[in-house]
Amino acid sequence: MAKEIWSREEVVRGKKIIFSWLHSKDAVVILAKRADNKIAFVQQRRPAIDKILLELPAGGIEKGEDPLLAAQRELKEETGWTGSDWMLLTSYFPSPGITDEKMYVFSCKLKDQADQELDEGEEIDVLYFTPEEALNMIKRKEIIDGKTIIALLLSSL
Amino acid sequence: MAKEIWSREEVVRGKKIIFSWLHSKDAVVILAKRADNKIAFVQQRRPAIDKILLELPAGGIEKGEDPLLAAQRELKEETGWTGSDWMLLTSYFPSPGITDEKMYVFSCKLKDQADQELDEGEEIDVLYFTPEEALNMIKRKEIIDGKTIIALLLSSL
Repeated sequence: MAKEIWSREEVVRGKKIIFSWLHSKDAVVILAKRADNKIAFVQQRRPAIDKILLELPAGGIEKGEDPLLAAQRELKEETGWTGSDWMLLTSYFPSPGITDEKMYVFSCKLKDQADQELDEGEEIDVLYFTPEEALNMIKRKEIIDGKTIIALLLSSL
Repeated sequence: MAKEIWSREEVVRGKKIIFSWLHSKDAVVILAKRADNKIAFVQQRRPAIDKILLELPAGGIEKGEDPLLAAQRELKEETGWTGSDWMLLTSYFPSPGITDEKMYVFSCKLKDQADQELDEGEEIDVLYFTPEEALNMIKRKEIIDGKTIIALLLSSL
């Protein structure tokens, strides 16, 4: 989990400026619905902010990995589910002033469930909510994870 | 613009794990409407991703600064406008797996315009779009900045 600061010199209004940012692998987030229309969420501790957050399943894209395959792998690892009917909803930059991380937003249907296959350092509870419950949790500021807010709001447009 | 990596050791499922992340100051983003209902956007180069992005006005909260005052300052610096009727729509974490940055989302009405007061390294064009034009740009994937997507979608709920 080594993190790296990258930098670049650019000329802005005639002056040389050094910009720096966190270099990060790209990532995927998955809006996955069960047959009863409930969406799969994961609840996990985020050491960076010392909070337990309710998020959609998500994770990093490994070097050379296709974003769709990364989404299928992360969904399986974090929830145990395999999905079908995969779609790429959008991709965006979570915080382009401080990191080059790019986020791919996928949707799918949940098909079959087995056990989680968690990475070292992961401890994840899987929970299910209807789209309406999820929107209400955004309005009540109980969902405060950016990728989760974007995926839910985009899919409700 | 120095960036710092912070880390913390935690015990997960009986094993010591070191988590690391980019420590960042918190930030504000502002959804500001002119009397004709058009929203103020800024277009600027983002060295981290080597792209010119269309975003809402935004910026970092200085040490000890109140988020609302930071929002009022950043709006003035980037667009020249002062605002009225300020409201905090929400706050969220753009990417809690890799950074502790917290983003405060404000809305306001635009009141009076003077000149921009740009920071060193900033070169920013101000543009205006209706809420409908903005939503269409999200759907067409022309707006790909996370904070801008969240502020626009939340305000249209």
